[in-house]
Amino acid sequence: MLVKSAWVTKQETGDANMTELSGYIADGAMAFLRAEWKILSYFVIIAAVLLAWSGTTVHNSSPLIAGSFLIGAFLSAFAGYLGMRIATKANVRTTQAAKTSLAQALKVSFTGGTVMGLGVAGLAIIGLGSLFIVFFKMFVKIDVNGEDMAKALDVLAGFSLGAESIALFARVGGGIYTKAADVGADLVGKVEAGIPEDDVRNPATIADNVGDNVGDVAGMGADLFGSYVATMLATMVLGREIHSNDAMGGIAPVLLPMVIAGLGLIFSIVGAGLVRIKGEHDSVQKALNIGNWSSIVLTAIATYFVVQWMLPAGDLFMSRDLANGVPRVGTSFTRDGVFGAILVGLVVGTLMSIITEYYTAMGKRPVLSIIRQSSTGHATNIIGGLAIGMESTVLPILVLAAGIFGSFHFAGLYGVAIAAAGMMATTAMQLAIDAFGPIADNAGGIAEMSGLPPEVRERTDNLDAVGNTTAATGKGFAIASAALTSLALFAAFVGVAGIAHIDIYKADVLAGLFVGGMIPFIFSALAISAVGRAAMAMVEEVRRQFREIPGIMEYKAKPEYEKCVAISTKASIREMVAPGLIALITPVIVGFAFGPEVLGGLLAGVTVSGVLMGIFQSNAGGAWDNAKKSFEKGVEINGETYYKKSEPHKASVTGDTVGDPFKDTSGPSMNILIKLMSIVSLVIAPHLNPNKVPPASVKNQPVKEIKAPTATVAKLNTVKYQ
Amino acid sequence: MLVKSAWVTKQETGDANMTELSGYIADGAMAFLRAEWKILSYFVIIAAVLLAWSGTTVHNSSPLIAGSFLIGAFLSAFAGYLGMRIATKANVRTTQAAKTSLAQALKVSFTGGTVMGLGVAGLAIIGLGSLFIVFFKMFVKIDVNGEDMAKALDVLAGFSLGAESIALFARVGGGIYTKAADVGADLVGKVEAGIPEDDVRNPATIADNVGDNVGDVAGMGADLFGSYVATMLATMVLGREIHSNDAMGGIAPVLLPMVIAGLGLIFSIVGAGLVRIKGEHDSVQKALNIGNWSSIVLTAIATYFVVQWMLPAGDLFMSRDLANGVPRVGTSFTRDGVFGAILVGLVVGTLMSIITEYYTAMGKRPVLSIIRQSSTGHATNIIGGLAIGMESTVLPILVLAAGIFGSFHFAGLYGVAIAAAGMMATTAMQLAIDAFGPIADNAGGIAEMSGLPPEVRERTDNLDAVGNTTAATGKGFAIASAALTSLALFAAFVGVAGIAHIDIYKADVLAGLFVGGMIPFIFSALAISAVGRAAMAMVEEVRRQFREIPGIMEYKAKPEYEKCVAISTKASIREMVAPGLIALITPVIVGFAFGPEVLGGLLAGVTVSGVLMGIFQSNAGGAWDNAKKSFEKGVEINGETYYKKSEPHKASVTGDTVGDPFKDTSGPSMNILIKLMSIVSLVIAPHLNPNKVPPASVKNQPVKEIKAPTATVAKLNTVKYQ
Repeated sequence: MLVKSAWVTKQETGDANMTELSGYIADGAMAFLRAEWKILSYFVIIAAVLLAWSGTTVHNSSPLIAGSFLIGAFLSAFAGYLGMRIATKANVRTTQAAKTSLAQALKVSFTGGTVMGLGVAGLAIIGLGSLFIVFFKMFVKIDVNGEDMAKALDVLAGFSLGAESIALFARVGGGIYTKAADVGADLVGKVEAGIPEDDVRNPATIADNVGDNVGDVAGMGADLFGSYVATMLATMVLGREIHSNDAMGGIAPVLLPMVIAGLGLIFSIVGAGLVRIKGEHDSVQKALNIGNWSSIVLTAIATYFVVQWMLPAGDLFMSRDLANGVPRVGTSFTRDGVFGAILVGLVVGTLMSIITEYYTAMGKRPVLSIIRQSSTGHATNIIGGLAIGMESTVLPILVLAAGIFGSFHFAGLYGVAIAAAGMMATTAMQLAIDAFGPIADNAGGIAEMSGLPPEVRERTDNLDAVGNTTAATGKGFAIASAALTSLALFAAFVGVAGIAHIDIYKADVLAGLFVGGMIPFIFSALAISAVGRAAMAMVEEVRRQFREIPGIMEYKAKPEYEKCVAISTKASIREMVAPGLIALITPVIVGFAFGPEVLGGLLAGVTVSGVLMGIFQSNAGGAWDNAKKSFEKGVEINGETYYKKSEPHKASVTGDTVGDPFKDTSGPSMNILIKLMSIVSLVIAPHLNPNKVPPASVKNQPVKEIKAPTATVAKLNTVKYQ
Repeated sequence: MLVKSAWVTKQETGDANMTELSGYIADGAMAFLRAEWKILSYFVIIAAVLLAWSGTTVHNSSPLIAGSFLIGAFLSAFAGYLGMRIATKANVRTTQAAKTSLAQALKVSFTGGTVMGLGVAGLAIIGLGSLFIVFFKMFVKIDVNGEDMAKALDVLAGFSLGAESIALFARVGGGIYTKAADVGADLVGKVEAGIPEDDVRNPATIADNVGDNVGDVAGMGADLFGSYVATMLATMVLGREIHSNDAMGGIAPVLLPMVIAGLGLIFSIVGAGLVRIKGEHDSVQKALNIGNWSSIVLTAIATYFVVQWMLPAGDLFMSRDLANGVPRVGTSFTRDGVFGAILVGLVVGTLMSIITEYYTAMGKRPVLSIIRQSSTGHATNIIGGLAIGMESTVLPILVLAAGIFGSFHFAGLYGVAIAAAGMMATTAMQLAIDAFGPIADNAGGIAEMSGLPPEVRERTDNLDAVGNTTAATGKGFAIASAALTSLALFAAFVGVAGIAHIDIYKADVLAGLFVGGMIPFIFSALAISAVGRAAMAMVEEVRRQFREIPGIMEYKAKPEYEKCVAISTKASIREMVAPGLIALITPVIVGFAFGPEVLGGLLAGVTVSGVLMGIFQSNAGGAWDNAKKSFEKGVEINGETYYKKSEPHKASVTGDTVGDPFKDTSGPSMNILIKLMSIVSLVIAPHLNPNKVPPASVKNQPVKEIKAPTATVAKLNTVKYQ
């Protein structure tokens, strides 16, 4: 990774003009990160103090959880920083490389993406792995299936909480930043002043390019870092409960997700090495596919042998499925079942990517229907896109439901978790593919602003187009992994909170389900209206500069780029607070006021509604975007061909603008929202466990359990103490 | 009612021109109903045959269920027909009355609404009540809390199923009809040809006015008829389980919802009598509020005495809450608790109306924010409206969750159901208020088309504006009642299906929850894209007529109104089939393939997601509509005043057009979707009961229950057979 990073840094940066522009972008991005970190440091310190205090109140947690929280938060922020540093270096070097050939431009931009992917995945594995070793040595004295281990994993959950909290703020803040700048720049620049995208005369253009880095690179890096860690953690928590007679002293099911992640990292490096093209007309998409598929297939094969080697032959079962010391019928599974669940995860991830691509790709039925509806105006374009977005939830949900069913069938709740771990194994490769898009986009921006010859822009546009597709499929993959991760966390939560059911037939649990379902709606509302407000502020600033600074349009005066950067920075930092706090505080309030079962209902509501809203918004946005892009080459509607600047094209621009905050702000935030709320619940679960807190807090526990016959109580205790 | 109906018929219809136009509207509306009935009669016959057959397969159902299904379907269709007949008579008479005074115009239009309200409510009470008496006499021999009564109520559920199925098709078909005509007429008429709304030269204008009747009157009539019946039925099913030592042989809890409905009907007549104004400047809204509040308060007071009289003093409890013959701690309640739950229902309904009004009324923060965002274009107007719609889910969901919690607290599951019944008691009044809006709208249309003097249009516009507000608050009320009704049906389903939990922590139940949550999305997608397609067909037909029939624009030739009516009719009939079948068939497939607990998960998913999508879409649509309307009087944005035809106004028209299918097609359909799926589940519940079907169908039942200790099995049996 360091070698590759050094290689990128060594590439030429081009002429003084290009270097200056890329300098503005890098400075703007750093300015945002600094402002964000400043706010987040307050939050992190307060949260750490609270965690340390709460760690002292129950016996199976520890104040050390504050430490692992701080490390998680720091590494997540560092992962974002790392990605952004390399991206802001790679962008201008990609532009310079595009002067020579497409192959070279791909090499530079994809190497930039690879550095980020390996860095993020590596940080996650090293961070989580070494903390696990420390806490394992520190706490686990007797029983690797018992309370010692539960304590070690609870403290480790702080790491995931830290990572996911930072990820939420980075994703939301970055998402607001990038879309406020993008929408603002387009509304005045393209529509009012009639200058092209990325024109150096547009005061908001630097902010727009900074946005690509802070939103699509830093935000996504922190997001996937969080998912990766959360998936491993959830699997580890469930793995603790597995009675495994293996060569590792019974902790093989706990270690397995980390080993699979390690394999995935290695084969991501191999796969990344295969991504190359030779001629100007070779398919970039094909090269990426070869690399991606190689890493997935190799990881799957290697995983088979690792599972056979690590897990014992014979039946495996979880503590919670024991009744009177014997697993209940149908609850045990084998190591082959575990591998089956991993395959289910890989299939679900692949299908989700394919479905997402279908709904957002040019030339397919969904995008074509939006194009056709653009011919009757703005309103029908919007109706068409909303309908496509809603329709696009059907297949992913059916795949996901089948995936839950299938992975549970193969290996119970551990199967659901390990399926998510399998899906996330090649995160490094996914991230490399995802991150090269914004780098290419930035490279194109720099080419345009520096007035380089058209073939340079053509090459970066080629890369950028592929980047748009990979961004869409990446989102499908991310939402699938978030859904499975949340379910795994949900299952882990039930175990740690010591409840036997989450029964939505109870009035209070059902009320929790309703409130949970509403949270993605208010979260989305806050995020997209924040973009609307910030974009309006940007529009007014750009209009002011055009009015008050004479000579901008004649290239005689330089616009005040930094003012626009400041507007985006300030707005995004201010607006990310409210949605972030909703995600963090709601589970705490509901959990302590109404008990763990109602909190379980809340989590189920958030997860279902969040997955639906995430798919709906991301796909509607992607489809609108590509409907608009289709007009660049000309589209045929009822026998007539329309190009850019036609009335249908204008309608399609409206759809694209509406879709921007959908697909890049609120849509992808849904992933983190559902994961973060699950992790917060997992962290507070020991405090909610009715057997471990004073009776006053459990008055909302179902009366039935308190009065349950002895057999049930015995079973409940088995679940918790065994 | 007949007196009032005769009074309306007796009013003058105005000149020949007006009579001719109103004749077109009445004919178009009848043509739609006939086409709809033709398709539905096939469906009803097939469904009745299936029901009759299925009624023979389990011992606590009966083939008679097909009969009560047919009666329910017929009465629901008849309720719609009745409303439409009186509305198409009242419209032209309101126009004529508006020539003299506002007071007279209100009197005619509101009397029309009242006839419809009383007719629908009366049909429901008489139909359900007399069938109950028949089945009670026929089946109930021994135990009014036991299986005899369960059988009588199961057969009665067929009535509700029939009513709600017709309601779904009427609502969706009518919703597609009205919005296809409206959007189509506006896009060509107002935008392209530049002629005003309701201009006689617009070929789609008759279809538009027909749409007000088939969508807003017939569709809504069938909808509320269904809700009203479903609420009573769910309460009756739960009431059966209550052990009540009352003067009515133990069936007071079963009869109570019907008695409350009867009281509500009587006080609706009283309240309707109070709706009157005197001068031209009296407030119509205030007159309606006085009538509405009087009927609610009087009903609440009367209900108190009825509850005291009908229910016995002392503890009441449900069969399912018995453990070893004694109710579990905290599950019993008193008659005061039942009254408390009814009050909760009234408060929830009132708060929902108030919140809905806030989010959709002119001059309040939500609509003002959309107006402001119209100044930066179509896209920001859309973003603003979507954000408001999403935000508007927060308070209603919190109120609803508190309502579930509160009514359950007062009287358990019976409390949740009776709260819904209390809320629905004054349905007749609600419907009168809701139906007068479209009548006034039509009256305005006829005034415009007949070229009457402006003060006539001014008076009908005054009524229409009030009608828009009442339509919005009516929707808030409808969604709240649908949510509570579904929960009551959900609770009834659990009892009849003989399951003890719906545990979302089980993988298959959770998968059901996901699939259920997705259904409102695909349902909405189908409904709004149907409107989009039908509107485009309408646009093309109107363009063709303008092109091919010379002299339309000079009033020399008459447009072919009937062609546009035919397009709307055909499209709406064709497009209502797919969403209708999804609602009907999904619960059957899931129930039989995966068992009752997974079906319970599906229902919970549908209910939560449906309520959210219903509120989101209805409120976004209402807010966009009033943002557009605000431009008629001029709005101030950043110190400048904008009127109609300004750029911000054009942007607001886009939002209004997007909002049309949201608020009048897919949004209100959500109510029926969630109720219908719950009723279908309730009807098939006896077939899914694990103790009543061959073991092959219960393989997906949780293993735990099969192996449950004897005590649990005893309890389960108690629930079903006691």
